[in-house]
Amino acid sequence: MSLIVQKFGGSSVADVDAMRRVAKRVVETKRAGHDVVVVVSAMGDTTDELLDMAAELNPNPSPREMDLLMSSGERISMSLLAMAIEAQGERAHAFTGRQAGMHTDTRFGKASIVGVVPERIVQCVRDGAVAIVAGFQGLSDNDDVTTLGRGGSDTTAVALAAALRADVCEIYTDVDGLFTADPRVVPSARRIFNLTAEETLELAAQGAKILHLRAVEYARRHKVALHVRSSFSDKDGTWIADHAVNPAIVRLLAPTIADQIIASKEDSVEAPIISGIAHDRSQSKITLVGVPDRPGLASRIFAIVAAADVNIDMIVQNVSVRDNSTDISFTLPSGDGQAALEALEAVAAEIGYKEIFLTEEIGKLSVVGAGMRSHPGVSAKLFGALSDAGINIEMISTSEIRISVVTALSDLDEAVRVAHTAFDLDSAEAEAIVYGGTGR
Amino acid sequence: MSLIVQKFGGSSVADVDAMRRVAKRVVETKRAGHDVVVVVSAMGDTTDELLDMAAELNPNPSPREMDLLMSSGERISMSLLAMAIEAQGERAHAFTGRQAGMHTDTRFGKASIVGVVPERIVQCVRDGAVAIVAGFQGLSDNDDVTTLGRGGSDTTAVALAAALRADVCEIYTDVDGLFTADPRVVPSARRIFNLTAEETLELAAQGAKILHLRAVEYARRHKVALHVRSSFSDKDGTWIADHAVNPAIVRLLAPTIADQIIASKEDSVEAPIISGIAHDRSQSKITLVGVPDRPGLASRIFAIVAAADVNIDMIVQNVSVRDNSTDISFTLPSGDGQAALEALEAVAAEIGYKEIFLTEEIGKLSVVGAGMRSHPGVSAKLFGALSDAGINIEMISTSEIRISVVTALSDLDEAVRVAHTAFDLDSAEAEAIVYGGTGR
Repeated sequence: MSLIVQKFGGSSVADVDAMRRVAKRVVETKRAGHDVVVVVSAMGDTTDELLDMAAELNPNPSPREMDLLMSSGERISMSLLAMAIEAQGERAHAFTGRQAGMHTDTRFGKASIVGVVPERIVQCVRDGAVAIVAGFQGLSDNDDVTTLGRGGSDTTAVALAAALRADVCEIYTDVDGLFTADPRVVPSARRIFNLTAEETLELAAQGAKILHLRAVEYARRHKVALHVRSSFSDKDGTWIADHAVNPAIVRLLAPTIADQIIASKEDSVEAPIISGIAHDRSQSKITLVGVPDRPGLASRIFAIVAAADVNIDMIVQNVSVRDNSTDISFTLPSGDGQAALEALEAVAAEIGYKEIFLTEEIGKLSVVGAGMRSHPGVSAKLFGALSDAGINIEMISTSEIRISVVTALSDLDEAVRVAHTAFDLDSAEAEAIVYGGTGR
Repeated sequence: MSLIVQKFGGSSVADVDAMRRVAKRVVETKRAGHDVVVVVSAMGDTTDELLDMAAELNPNPSPREMDLLMSSGERISMSLLAMAIEAQGERAHAFTGRQAGMHTDTRFGKASIVGVVPERIVQCVRDGAVAIVAGFQGLSDNDDVTTLGRGGSDTTAVALAAALRADVCEIYTDVDGLFTADPRVVPSARRIFNLTAEETLELAAQGAKILHLRAVEYARRHKVALHVRSSFSDKDGTWIADHAVNPAIVRLLAPTIADQIIASKEDSVEAPIISGIAHDRSQSKITLVGVPDRPGLASRIFAIVAAADVNIDMIVQNVSVRDNSTDISFTLPSGDGQAALEALEAVAAEIGYKEIFLTEEIGKLSVVGAGMRSHPGVSAKLFGALSDAGINIEMISTSEIRISVVTALSDLDEAVRVAHTAFDLDSAEAEAIVYGGTGR
């Protein structure tokens, strides 16, 4: 008997009709002969309504009480979903994070899971009922309710799937899966059927907002197969796994792409060179011109930026042989640009750079693919395509399976389209989908 | 140091403004130098909204999931109230029923408290913070969330007050206290300052809907002094205690009537003969005419009614010496009239009565007062006053401290006014109040 974990985000259970739709899907999975554990987020606007009331009463609420408040949203949705499933003829029991054995540390609002002891879930499933678990929440050693922060329900689902040794963890959201590029930018983008966790991490980190990094990272570490798909359609989604997956489960959940998925995971069929292209409009760039080429100065610069609580993404440094000075550029979240600029201006004399520039708006494009490892020439093809289109590259950084470039923000959309075509990712027919973010 | 438990019903925390008002009152009590533990119900319409969604999804939801769902309402209000109090400068922590140590049996939807282990509440108060506790909910030995049913938050407050040995348990509601009669019927009705628990039970059972019987009964058994009052005014309310109460507390919470309260509890000042008059429009009457006067027949009749799941209130039986038969009348909740009638008609031959009547609409009036014990003549005065007003009495029943009569429903309002005047309960000036029900 196989076990499937299904996670439904807030938009999938926004109202009673949506709730019934989710219940129907769960019941169908159950009746296909599988054990089902469901993880559910708070209903649509519940979270925002609770946040609004809290903000009205106290601009700086206690984190402990905030978590008590926020955790009530899942309590409502999980109870109602259990009722909806029972109305369709299958037994279902709802469990809070505590009852499901989600143990966390004590960092309210951003707790980490420290252990999962799902005794009651195992018992429930063994009794033939569907277990519904509140996402996003757990219990600390101090007996306090905690929440896991953004992406928390995804993480709950993956952690439960790992603890229960589930065959797959399905993440239901409001889009059909991960795409070769953002379809709003590239109308010919197509759904990616098959990804490794590593590729997914690179795509997600580079701006594809479907899945939360924590959950993917957890899935990779614990070898949990993920299936990301829409709760609003019956389309197959995107499978994410580094290992073989249960063929019967794939055939049930993704019939139209099952052979492809199974073959790729089992027979080490060669992966496509490029899986997808991510882009990011949320970064700025700072350039320090004429920094003396002295040991330790770069580390001093980034210590100052870190002290201003700014996370740096890309760094590029070029030593000029001409005057023994160097130019250093780095990218950072747009909102942090001014803070970093001021921190560095305050130590201008000490560092001894000649000029400093903040470029508020930049575009960043990343080409991701595990096949890159064994295929040289990917960089050349990307740079050539951009060059042919007259797009200037301002910065470059690479990992084993990713090449990222910074362009002018105004060039970004065109750059994504050009790269998409260059790597043969365009589909014959555009899929009608909306590409948005997930809730918790 | 004294400890005050304050319970706020749903109408007292209906929105963020109401929440702030409640917070202000709690903060004032705290700053007057007292430890404060607050019990709070779900916000205004929350309960109804949750019930509506549940009903839409499943006409017959599982009681366990219903309790999980309903308990989320208090979780929201308690967290928000803690934030509102902290915004006004006092520390406050919120606790679920489980965290507050409310242990119940396993009867979902109508659980009974089996024990209170308020360790975290004691610790919180000892640390100088206000403890906010979710009313209406607890945890069963099976680790499941339970709710206490109607009046549950009152019961939570009284049980906590008992366990913490609080000086008083204040029940805040949307009316100013208990009244000598329903002011909608008797405009000259006045607030009752002082009642025994026994009187309160008789008044509540007879239709005064301010306080829930369970909570009053719990308070009586555990010697908890109650102060029932409005959260919308600063008026003193009604004190309910059979024993001496802490004078400092009474002076703080009810300054205008403190002397009166303290004297009555401490010096056994004679209680007023009649404390108040309750009425009830929700009953019907069944009369069996010409029942053979055989032993066991009455018990057979009431066994049949009980088997139809009908609770009987008053019973009157008169044996006729003329033909060795008897007439039996009893009152019952209006909704149960037809069921009882049909059950008795089905055994007409066996019982051998001559006729059966169902009177759907009757009025019931009860005069309540602990002073009745030592003052004969109360019945005579009541019957005289009703007779002078031309009101016919259809049934009479009495307890040690109560006389109840059944009249035609059309006579009831007049009967209440006549009795109110006869027992000198009219106040010089009518108080402008609204007399309604409480939430949970």
